[in-house]
Amino acid sequence: MAHGYVDIKPALLARLSRAEGQVRGIARMIDEDVYCIDVLTQVSAATKALESVALALLEDHLAHCVAEATAEGGPVAEEKLREANAAIARLVRS
Amino acid sequence: MAHGYVDIKPALLARLSRAEGQVRGIARMIDEDVYCIDVLTQVSAATKALESVALALLEDHLAHCVAEATAEGGPVAEEKLREANAAIARLVRS
Amino acid sequence: MAHGYVDIKPALLARLSRAEGQVRGIARMIDEDVYCIDVLTQVSAATKALESVALALLEDHLAHCVAEATAEGGPVAEEKLREANAAIARLVRS
Amino acid sequence: MAHGYVDIKPALLARLSRAEGQVRGIARMIDEDVYCIDVLTQVSAATKALESVALALLEDHLAHCVAEATAEGGPVAEEKLREANAAIARLVRS
Repeated sequence: MAHGYVDIKPALLARLSRAEGQVRGIARMIDEDVYCIDVLTQVSAATKALESVALALLEDHLAHCVAEATAEGGPVAEEKLREANAAIARLVRS
Repeated sequence: MAHGYVDIKPALLARLSRAEGQVRGIARMIDEDVYCIDVLTQVSAATKALESVALALLEDHLAHCVAEATAEGGPVAEEKLREANAAIARLVRS
Repeated sequence: MAHGYVDIKPALLARLSRAEGQVRGIARMIDEDVYCIDVLTQVSAATKALESVALALLEDHLAHCVAEATAEGGPVAEEKLREANAAIARLVRS
Repeated sequence: MAHGYVDIKPALLARLSRAEGQVRGIARMIDEDVYCIDVLTQVSAATKALESVALALLEDHLAHCVAEATAEGGPVAEEKLREANAAIARLVRS
């Protein structure tokens, strides 16, 4: 079943491919004894890349899955909102 | 030139290899139209994995590079502290 | 005009009153030259208290303002979703 | 016993006084049923203010308490580094 993010799938996959390359690059830096601060700078960049994937996914989830459920109302809406809020809390605290 | 993290290099590389696998796994989930919330859960897990790499690197940097510089004092110490504080601020805000 | 959070207003105000007391307490610790790490522990606690207020507000906003707007659809829904996503991004990055 | 932050005490107390005012202002907004997104914007601002206090405290702690301990070396240095790393981890995860 396609989800809200089907329209942005190519963009998400491109970002994830870059993030994967960043993580591989960090491993190479460590393998080559690169200075700690330069490695840390790359780790922050990779973390931000993953964060932008999460925010894009969340945006689509709210606009599609959650919006459809809240239009329906009742327990379906409550569960979708509960899930979305738990995902937001995890993001805020990671 | 080996840095403070030389002792924990194998552990860092193992964690990064896992994080790389997690990012690849997230791409696969998106490719297979997995439910948004389940993908978001994995993105939070991969973000936490990168965070633990950063905190381990920072720990070693403070215990070695920064400690050696502050023992020496003067501009070398100031620069090392400036760099470390900037890296901590980036981590806190990513 | 009452908003979604009207039902949890007393709880939000109680948490904010505690957070205000925590911030005042941190100032007192600094005034009394308390050890840095103990002050930092309190700052993290006050930050978490504010975060829990933000997450509770966001929860109600999604369940009421955003849900009503997405049921209506069109530009009203788009603007409400845009605002909510921007608020979530600010929270994730603060 | 004065700590590293004694030099920046006035600046820290000024920031905390502003943060306290921000938290009080958020309570007033909620009391007056201000729109959720506008309240959330203020909560993010107050969180950032507390974060800047924490980063300033940490900076001084590393430059004074931790630097003195690492110059001495041995268990004193280990404990100070352990404490600092735990404080940084709390900050990163709050």
